[in-house]
Amino acid sequence: MSERKAILVVGAGDATGGAIAKRFAREGYVACVARRNAEKLLPLVAEIEAAGGSARAFGCDARVEEQVVELFATIEREVGPLHAVVFNIGANVQFSITETTERVYRKVWEMAALAGFLTGREAAKVMLLRGQGTIIFTGATASLRGRANFSAFASAKFALRALAQSMARELGPKGIHVAHPIIDGAIDTAFIRDTFPQLYQLKDQDGILNPDHIADTYWQIHCQPRDCWVHELDLRPWSETF
Amino acid sequence: MSERKAILVVGAGDATGGAIAKRFAREGYVACVARRNAEKLLPLVAEIEAAGGSARAFGCDARVEEQVVELFATIEREVGPLHAVVFNIGANVQFSITETTERVYRKVWEMAALAGFLTGREAAKVMLLRGQGTIIFTGATASLRGRANFSAFASAKFALRALAQSMARELGPKGIHVAHPIIDGAIDTAFIRDTFPQLYQLKDQDGILNPDHIADTYWQIHCQPRDCWVHELDLRPWSETF
Amino acid sequence: MSERKAILVVGAGDATGGAIAKRFAREGYVACVARRNAEKLLPLVAEIEAAGGSARAFGCDARVEEQVVELFATIEREVGPLHAVVFNIGANVQFSITETTERVYRKVWEMAALAGFLTGREAAKVMLLRGQGTIIFTGATASLRGRANFSAFASAKFALRALAQSMARELGPKGIHVAHPIIDGAIDTAFIRDTFPQLYQLKDQDGILNPDHIADTYWQIHCQPRDCWVHELDLRPWSETF
Amino acid sequence: MSERKAILVVGAGDATGGAIAKRFAREGYVACVARRNAEKLLPLVAEIEAAGGSARAFGCDARVEEQVVELFATIEREVGPLHAVVFNIGANVQFSITETTERVYRKVWEMAALAGFLTGREAAKVMLLRGQGTIIFTGATASLRGRANFSAFASAKFALRALAQSMARELGPKGIHVAHPIIDGAIDTAFIRDTFPQLYQLKDQDGILNPDHIADTYWQIHCQPRDCWVHELDLRPWSETF
Repeated sequence: MSERKAILVVGAGDATGGAIAKRFAREGYVACVARRNAEKLLPLVAEIEAAGGSARAFGCDARVEEQVVELFATIEREVGPLHAVVFNIGANVQFSITETTERVYRKVWEMAALAGFLTGREAAKVMLLRGQGTIIFTGATASLRGRANFSAFASAKFALRALAQSMARELGPKGIHVAHPIIDGAIDTAFIRDTFPQLYQLKDQDGILNPDHIADTYWQIHCQPRDCWVHELDLRPWSETF
Repeated sequence: MSERKAILVVGAGDATGGAIAKRFAREGYVACVARRNAEKLLPLVAEIEAAGGSARAFGCDARVEEQVVELFATIEREVGPLHAVVFNIGANVQFSITETTERVYRKVWEMAALAGFLTGREAAKVMLLRGQGTIIFTGATASLRGRANFSAFASAKFALRALAQSMARELGPKGIHVAHPIIDGAIDTAFIRDTFPQLYQLKDQDGILNPDHIADTYWQIHCQPRDCWVHELDLRPWSETF
Repeated sequence: MSERKAILVVGAGDATGGAIAKRFAREGYVACVARRNAEKLLPLVAEIEAAGGSARAFGCDARVEEQVVELFATIEREVGPLHAVVFNIGANVQFSITETTERVYRKVWEMAALAGFLTGREAAKVMLLRGQGTIIFTGATASLRGRANFSAFASAKFALRALAQSMARELGPKGIHVAHPIIDGAIDTAFIRDTFPQLYQLKDQDGILNPDHIADTYWQIHCQPRDCWVHELDLRPWSETF
Repeated sequence: MSERKAILVVGAGDATGGAIAKRFAREGYVACVARRNAEKLLPLVAEIEAAGGSARAFGCDARVEEQVVELFATIEREVGPLHAVVFNIGANVQFSITETTERVYRKVWEMAALAGFLTGREAAKVMLLRGQGTIIFTGATASLRGRANFSAFASAKFALRALAQSMARELGPKGIHVAHPIIDGAIDTAFIRDTFPQLYQLKDQDGILNPDHIADTYWQIHCQPRDCWVHELDLRPWSETF
């Protein structure tokens, strides 16, 4: 068992993380999925297993160092070597600068940047031992541009991008592929469907991102031979303005 | 015959263009390859045909409007509908600013930017009729950063990037996928092998880009469903500093 | 007294913050300078007063919300309306990703980003009441590019840049000028002199930034009429590579 | 006479170029102004002279190498050493990609990029002899972002930015200051007044750029000591979205 390749998706609660887990499971990876409440992951695990794949759910608050350290130790010990780690926690909030509380500014950073740092660092530690592996941090439009009412969210996503860039430059020459896809557009999730029904209608004309297609791209990134690695790329629907 | 999908690679002289042609031919596309001197393309055509694919060589000076217009008309009439067009002409020169002649500055722009404009515009014309298609412009490190001795080359590559961005924003909502991969590193070509033998030795450790792997990425870009398109991405060997 | 214009410099410990305070004091502003240990600011206050200016030193840990809130309240109440606020706290550290502790990653962010957010938000609050004012956040090379061993520092400086951009877009149309100068090069400080003596020798040929010249630029930014505002600019010595 | 410092403004037809010439003339520089039709410059020359300054008008098609070479030779011989050169030719056109003729694409590049190259190169030649001087290229929003219907204009402005960056990196260490201000917004010109009367009404609330304020910034850039040079900066009205 311990010789099977593993992937870890931190922030597997939403559609994208789940789709990535399923995609890698289909290729024979053991899909380790983590979020704060492991129980919410059971349907995903069941779906992967029903399709003939292997999956493990982990409860983990990725903002807490000890929990992240323990998560990696457990997977490497009980599941198998991590060949891919995806950090996929978002924390999209909108507040005017004067209405952004210290608590919100800090919490958004802890979820979207600090947790990414802890995940990325622990991934680097296990992958450096083997001189290979893929680490992917999911970016957003706010990774590239600040915007009114986006002080907290853009600060956190900029920070994550800086982390991804720094790690790519540091770990690339050591055999570890670090990538930062930027998702620029609405994704087909329950949240979008329920909160922005009008936006969701764009689905009929492919105007919102299908998580399975994002997952295909992540799989392609992971499969790139090391002479031809992507670091940053943007993904958006054809009809999205940018 | 005229119902077979066609790809056009403008600037198919070097390794990358040829690899892209072969990649699409393997998928059933008729590979139309163009460069100034069509005769130099005969080995590539022969290679594609020997592998069971279809190819056509065209002599075309892509800096000359009438020749580009004629090229597209011929392919659409005699070969089939163009589903993908790749502009792949480089023009890398290095001169200090004071030693850059007007002739060099103009010629580099004509090769790397004007020819890209003519190719892109004609591609847009035929693809708009069908509301679909992929147009890929090959970028370089100099597309993103000016540098001492790079006034002419960076000016031309920046211009090409502006073209790609403008076309993506204009044509995306009309169903046409415009992408701008940035190749950041030496490619495995005869030129690199003969001119920079020391750099070429990096090949043994995957330190230079394999044209076939670049071609795989171009094929993946072309295959992306329209809800999940990439516009810009960087490609480099694992060991390349950036 | 309360009708005199005030400037606040948060992070006035180093050469740059002090030079900015002196520059504005020379123009008649009351220079309010803040750092954790107010006593260390006494020489600066003395220097400003000896030159005929007015200054006030404040002890403030800018990472602590209540202290920042109190700082602004005190100045507005006791000194005068804040027409300019400069956030100038750096936190340059270098660690490989695997040797970056959670404590370091968090602390660097608290100093360089969270404190900037608290300062910027409180500045916005008082300036919005008057529909005018200038807020300047000091950036660095690491604000634009990640780099090996810079995960923590670049994350924090990227975050600060996102804050500056978001605030500029939000507050500009409300009359508040938000700027983000990027200092790209060594500054003439005691730290550089003592730690990098060889680098410091560049001073003789103007190879390191003179804090007074940075301060001149900050003053010019503050004086720009509102039809012609700069948001981002880079400053470096003539001999600096970039 | 030949010991007086000279500034050359290429593209002095519009409000910005004229304001820059007047600003430098006020500081004692001989303002050499050039455009295709020298007669149109006579009111500007008269205005400068009426204010006590010195000015010279030159007819020059800056797209033609010999004319640019001759222009520099004449000024250096007859007027005085060029300490500042400003390239200020715009060429803003808007066409959809399919309606952009080869003639338009080429002409816009010749005006906005080739002429900038010729001007910059000749400026470098005379300034390198003295190891000092300032070269400023005026940028626009389209220097940073492509946009629907902007293929030609953005291509040319991107090219000019690449030139400015390459020259800055090459010539900075040789004592020559190269800067690239990006004007992001409408300028108070007769063209805007007559063509976009509604936009022009923003003038009352400082919503369009005053050429004199742009000129102040150019003068400040020129005055920067060489330990503290700006290369790129953006200028826009407070109310401009970006």
